[in-house]
Amino acid sequence: AAFLNKRRKRLSLMVTRNALARLEERGITVDCPIEMVEPRQIDHRVGGDAVHQGVLLTARALDPLDLDDLGDARLVLALDQVTDPHNVGAILRSAVALGADGLITTTRHSPQESGVLAKAASGAVDLLPHAEVTNLSKALEALKRQGFTCVALDSAGEGRLEDVVIADRVALVLGAEGKGVRPGVRATCDTVARLDMPGAITSLNVSNAAVLAMYVLRNKLVG
Amino acid sequence: AAFLNKRRKRLSLMVTRNALARLEERGITVDCPIEMVEPRQIDHRVGGDAVHQGVLLTARALDPLDLDDLGDARLVLALDQVTDPHNVGAILRSAVALGADGLITTTRHSPQESGVLAKAASGAVDLLPHAEVTNLSKALEALKRQGFTCVALDSAGEGRLEDVVIADRVALVLGAEGKGVRPGVRATCDTVARLDMPGAITSLNVSNAAVLAMYVLRNKLVG
Repeated sequence: AAFLNKRRKRLSLMVTRNALARLEERGITVDCPIEMVEPRQIDHRVGGDAVHQGVLLTARALDPLDLDDLGDARLVLALDQVTDPHNVGAILRSAVALGADGLITTTRHSPQESGVLAKAASGAVDLLPHAEVTNLSKALEALKRQGFTCVALDSAGEGRLEDVVIADRVALVLGAEGKGVRPGVRATCDTVARLDMPGAITSLNVSNAAVLAMYVLRNKLVG
Repeated sequence: AAFLNKRRKRLSLMVTRNALARLEERGITVDCPIEMVEPRQIDHRVGGDAVHQGVLLTARALDPLDLDDLGDARLVLALDQVTDPHNVGAILRSAVALGADGLITTTRHSPQESGVLAKAASGAVDLLPHAEVTNLSKALEALKRQGFTCVALDSAGEGRLEDVVIADRVALVLGAEGKGVRPGVRATCDTVARLDMPGAITSLNVSNAAVLAMYVLRNKLVG
């Protein structure tokens, strides 16, 4: 995905002979310096227990977009200070899979684009338009003016997410585990909804909550 | 959860003064040797970047149950060689949250109960009955005789999971990312179903797929 993204600046590639052949089979032209390596050289570089497919691309982080660049998005995800790279990566992957059109994060207390995040995202960092804003509440106000229903997810939400009535555009706001969505951001949202859990554990891992919430909202958009 | 589980053998506890007070507030009696420590001693033990709440319990792994011990379970999750501890932990947490009644894993190529898994599971290792079997296909045959519909999840499944017709008991079988459910196990299942993804990425992280599949199946059981 990083090779197919025109906005991505590629710097150098470590690659095994087999992996380079696989890239070429897929019609990918490598437009940066190539270092041919053995798999163990990549093992060494990424740390012993990380799984890889024989390819390590060094690239510049993408410049984030402005809110206006999200265009005619219908399902947008906003992360309020969620930073764990494994979770954020899985969230981005699921967001693309479920057809979300954009991601909003804040300039501060946000996930940094890293190898761990990119690997967990499975290509999604190059597929999901990502806007960065300095003030999430103001960004949500702007989305509301553009016809978005802004829904914060919180276990103490006033209603079930399944029962929320949305317009034809929706922004889902997720906070970090433990802290949740910040009160000021929550107050900006049209509604605060919860995912009811019948079991002895009532909260999900943030990426598990994200995929479930996006699934519920997407069914509303197409249903 | 490990303190409230009668089947759990607790060996020793490293705990900060504040965390011990929180345990006592919750009515938990510590029945193993206690070592009072500073938070950084736990930091050091678990590795620099692991988040903890000032409690590190050393305990024996639980003895796995037999298939018959799952009793009158209605929603059972079977993991076919899924081993990544972060993912398995998140899956167990979501399984308990969504009201699953039991977990089946195989004796070989299975996740080991570890600190990483237990932390990601957020108490679920002590809450979800866990049976270990040597042969997953035989176990699924036994479940079918007990009235379970056995559903394997696979992106190449013949129908959408949402459209699967189930009896009043269901076993969901998940395989590892990339490999999927092994062919012999798939062949034993009543049906192989897929989660349709509308986006440019068509597969989810295994814990994200698990939570979505359990959500869909649970709605069928109660709906």
